[in-house]
Amino acid sequence: MTLDFKPGGAGLRTRVFQVIFESDTPLAKGFDIALIGVILASVLVVMLDSIQSLRADYGTLFYWVEWGFTLAFTIELAVRLYCLDKPLRYLRSFYGIVDVIAILPTWLVLIVPGAQSLVVVRLLRVLRIFRVLRLMQFVGEARLLLEALRRSIRQIFLFFFGIFMLVTIFASLMYLIESAEAGFTSIPQSIYWAIVSLTTVGYGDIVPVTPIGQAITVLLMLTGYSIIAVPTGVFSAQVIRAIREDRYSDEACPGCGHDRHEKRAKYCLKCGTWLDEETPDPRLTEAET
Amino acid sequence: MTLDFKPGGAGLRTRVFQVIFESDTPLAKGFDIALIGVILASVLVVMLDSIQSLRADYGTLFYWVEWGFTLAFTIELAVRLYCLDKPLRYLRSFYGIVDVIAILPTWLVLIVPGAQSLVVVRLLRVLRIFRVLRLMQFVGEARLLLEALRRSIRQIFLFFFGIFMLVTIFASLMYLIESAEAGFTSIPQSIYWAIVSLTTVGYGDIVPVTPIGQAITVLLMLTGYSIIAVPTGVFSAQVIRAIREDRYSDEACPGCGHDRHEKRAKYCLKCGTWLDEETPDPRLTEAET
Amino acid sequence: MTLDFKPGGAGLRTRVFQVIFESDTPLAKGFDIALIGVILASVLVVMLDSIQSLRADYGTLFYWVEWGFTLAFTIELAVRLYCLDKPLRYLRSFYGIVDVIAILPTWLVLIVPGAQSLVVVRLLRVLRIFRVLRLMQFVGEARLLLEALRRSIRQIFLFFFGIFMLVTIFASLMYLIESAEAGFTSIPQSIYWAIVSLTTVGYGDIVPVTPIGQAITVLLMLTGYSIIAVPTGVFSAQVIRAIREDRYSDEACPGCGHDRHEKRAKYCLKCGTWLDEETPDPRLTEAET
Amino acid sequence: MTLDFKPGGAGLRTRVFQVIFESDTPLAKGFDIALIGVILASVLVVMLDSIQSLRADYGTLFYWVEWGFTLAFTIELAVRLYCLDKPLRYLRSFYGIVDVIAILPTWLVLIVPGAQSLVVVRLLRVLRIFRVLRLMQFVGEARLLLEALRRSIRQIFLFFFGIFMLVTIFASLMYLIESAEAGFTSIPQSIYWAIVSLTTVGYGDIVPVTPIGQAITVLLMLTGYSIIAVPTGVFSAQVIRAIREDRYSDEACPGCGHDRHEKRAKYCLKCGTWLDEETPDPRLTEAET
Repeated sequence: MTLDFKPGGAGLRTRVFQVIFESDTPLAKGFDIALIGVILASVLVVMLDSIQSLRADYGTLFYWVEWGFTLAFTIELAVRLYCLDKPLRYLRSFYGIVDVIAILPTWLVLIVPGAQSLVVVRLLRVLRIFRVLRLMQFVGEARLLLEALRRSIRQIFLFFFGIFMLVTIFASLMYLIESAEAGFTSIPQSIYWAIVSLTTVGYGDIVPVTPIGQAITVLLMLTGYSIIAVPTGVFSAQVIRAIREDRYSDEACPGCGHDRHEKRAKYCLKCGTWLDEETPDPRLTEAET
Repeated sequence: MTLDFKPGGAGLRTRVFQVIFESDTPLAKGFDIALIGVILASVLVVMLDSIQSLRADYGTLFYWVEWGFTLAFTIELAVRLYCLDKPLRYLRSFYGIVDVIAILPTWLVLIVPGAQSLVVVRLLRVLRIFRVLRLMQFVGEARLLLEALRRSIRQIFLFFFGIFMLVTIFASLMYLIESAEAGFTSIPQSIYWAIVSLTTVGYGDIVPVTPIGQAITVLLMLTGYSIIAVPTGVFSAQVIRAIREDRYSDEACPGCGHDRHEKRAKYCLKCGTWLDEETPDPRLTEAET
Repeated sequence: MTLDFKPGGAGLRTRVFQVIFESDTPLAKGFDIALIGVILASVLVVMLDSIQSLRADYGTLFYWVEWGFTLAFTIELAVRLYCLDKPLRYLRSFYGIVDVIAILPTWLVLIVPGAQSLVVVRLLRVLRIFRVLRLMQFVGEARLLLEALRRSIRQIFLFFFGIFMLVTIFASLMYLIESAEAGFTSIPQSIYWAIVSLTTVGYGDIVPVTPIGQAITVLLMLTGYSIIAVPTGVFSAQVIRAIREDRYSDEACPGCGHDRHEKRAKYCLKCGTWLDEETPDPRLTEAET
Repeated sequence: MTLDFKPGGAGLRTRVFQVIFESDTPLAKGFDIALIGVILASVLVVMLDSIQSLRADYGTLFYWVEWGFTLAFTIELAVRLYCLDKPLRYLRSFYGIVDVIAILPTWLVLIVPGAQSLVVVRLLRVLRIFRVLRLMQFVGEARLLLEALRRSIRQIFLFFFGIFMLVTIFASLMYLIESAEAGFTSIPQSIYWAIVSLTTVGYGDIVPVTPIGQAITVLLMLTGYSIIAVPTGVFSAQVIRAIREDRYSDEACPGCGHDRHEKRAKYCLKCGTWLDEETPDPRLTEAET
């Protein structure tokens, strides 16, 4: 699951390590599934706890259930640190920080004196929902998607850069044309409106009212409607490429060391060496006969 | 039409089976088309019946027309069961359940005493519209789409998992930042808003009012606007693959090694060698005779 | 321009025919461009005429300009009919009907007595905007798009059929769950709402208010957000295919008459005949030597 | 950075030219990054200056910071003109005009007498935000995207032409069907609504209220929802082509006729034949020596 942590010592610590840090054995897989279940359940409780009417009726129940989850996560973190070679390094890693964030808010409420302001308590209570980030470790497998994303990142960055310029220009124009009464009170507000329109969300909280404002809006909406083709097209092309790359072998040519041949290639495209080590080179056979 | 049902006995039952369960003969095709027509008509009547003003004027007409459809569907179900080998197995299949749901509500209204609450009657009346599900059997042919979907399912599942995390984080932040007056009354309510925004639907019933809330909304909208490229890209790539694999073989020509022939090719397009190894080359046969 | 009309007689009529029905000569191209300009101008006048304030000030001007356009289009239609072999056949064709619709409303206002109701006059005035349809003849070149569309039509039809079922089910559920006060007054009204949501338009005129209604809406929006990948994927794949098809030759094999070979093919994939008529078959050359 | 400007004279002017017009040396790259930073900062100040409350508190600060930026941009423009061969030609180029627009508004406020109306001052102040256009020079590298766009431009133009006709027809119909009270006050207003609906923005400021108007809206929304597949499909196909053509050659191998080699290939991947006809095969040379 995590990339490069090592168990500390042999025996029990190694066996525990294999269960909670790896996912090869049935026990380790069971642990992963149970962990996902507990995380989702704890996130659900935070969500329900935020509903005023449910909180009024089941507040005490939520409080104790929450403590149950916090204790479970605390014990889990302790076991994790116990079986690791370098526990402090884990604490400073991304998943370590998320683990601490998952338990910190509940403990803080206990430690901080009761006269604590409600705002902070509310903040801490909601922060617990960031436990959902712990699920990220289970998404780490989306290799194909990430590969395609990595390759399109440059084009997609340029795309957002272009959107930034476009939105700034449109927002400034609308700020000049439309009045503050229509909601265009400042350029940042106009930028908010421009992005609401360009992304085709269209809340309708700010809306053009002058004919020329509506004409500019039409241009903005048509732009937003059609440029979505750009990231979609680039990403499609990269997914197709990533799928196709499975056609490429990583084995190095014995002649020149080049290591990116199509799998069906029989001769190295750089030096002409015969690549298939299991059968003899037909050129040699012909020469001999 | 259905996958693995068998007629019960020979003679009439087999012939009826061929008409209503298969679609090879002209009569069976006619039956299918008539069935589609009757289902659509009955769904239309339920829809019209839900309009208050039409119901006031034509309520009685709708009532009797509805009985006509129910009787027709009941007879059809009876015939289906009559000509089947194992009628009970059909009743427990997906289409069997849909068939029962299609007729049950109307019969229930008759059986249940008149003092029945209006809510249940209304419920039963609307449930009849689920007859539309019977049309699913006629969509079963979208082989290419389903094949592409089957292959992208893993990536698309990961995509929705990522959306779930994203939406939870954004919704919690907005719940902290925006007030209940703006509509962010609870985290579930914020999640509803976050999905309305991420999917670019943008009803505008809940809308950020603070500058920092609007800034976060901008990030959420841009994310929603661009990550749609992910399922689209994955699915496009898979449709392209499914179409291509339908047509090209990867087997190499025994003559020259060329390995991208259309499946229907009998001779290599490069060197003219006979490709079908299981039957002899007609050119050779002709030359011999 | 039109597909299969012939000039009536020789001399002047043929020359006029070439100018207004074809677009090969500079004069014919000039006529096409002038026609596009006049159509757009006449559509613009109808649009401006519909704005109350402009109509109050320039109503008389619009009236006379409109008569100018009508006379021009009438003369054009007369010339078209004059130079055709079978004028009546043109009148019954799609473009003929559009030509008549383009001039009929203005003439009708003249013929019909002055006491004519305002509603009909308004209707006729707006109908003139359908002249924009005359521009369709100039779009007829989108060969690649139409080819890709023709090939995806089956999948896209299935897609809309699926949407119809989906929308019916969701609309019925929401009609049961949400009250008429929230806008879900009938199933057709709910279907309107469901399509507003599924297509991610999201006007916000009808909006779910109950928690369970919002949960179902979330499902509907996520469905709409992601199934757009289906037509996009299918269409992308077909455009790619249509581009690639340029690799295929339409020339028939001299051996068996098969007429769909890849352009690079040297041997017929059906019968193995040598396809390149300009150079001799290497098999024959080898056999001779 | 700019395409075809030359330094005027040698020595200092050439060295300055290389720093501000090219981006090969570390100094030139540093200048580019600093310029991007200053442009973004100056745009940010204009944005903040448009917020009423910030302006009340920090108006004087913004005023002097703005003068700082204007002086910096003025000096930069002077240096640019100084080191160029033909300074006037630069002033008439796109980037020259943008450079002037970037400094003109602030200078104009100084020159124009104090009694100047507030509207013009506001206009000039906002116009400074167009400095963001100066960033365009740094986006010029999106070669692949522009190539794909150039190839799809014809199809995308036809697409917008089709949208124009579609929107005109739908808008006219809705103008006839819906009343002015619902917001359909004129055909241009209806066109604004039709584009808001077709692009799936859906503000909700104008909304159909009659059943038949809603039915037409359903058609319009489904059209808008699905035809987005057209530009997406065309653009995807062109990006895929542009990526592929970057890598594969169509020239056939002289040995076996295989015609899909990566451009960098020197030996045929099928038969090992030397592909580069202009230089001798190193294997032969080695054998001879």
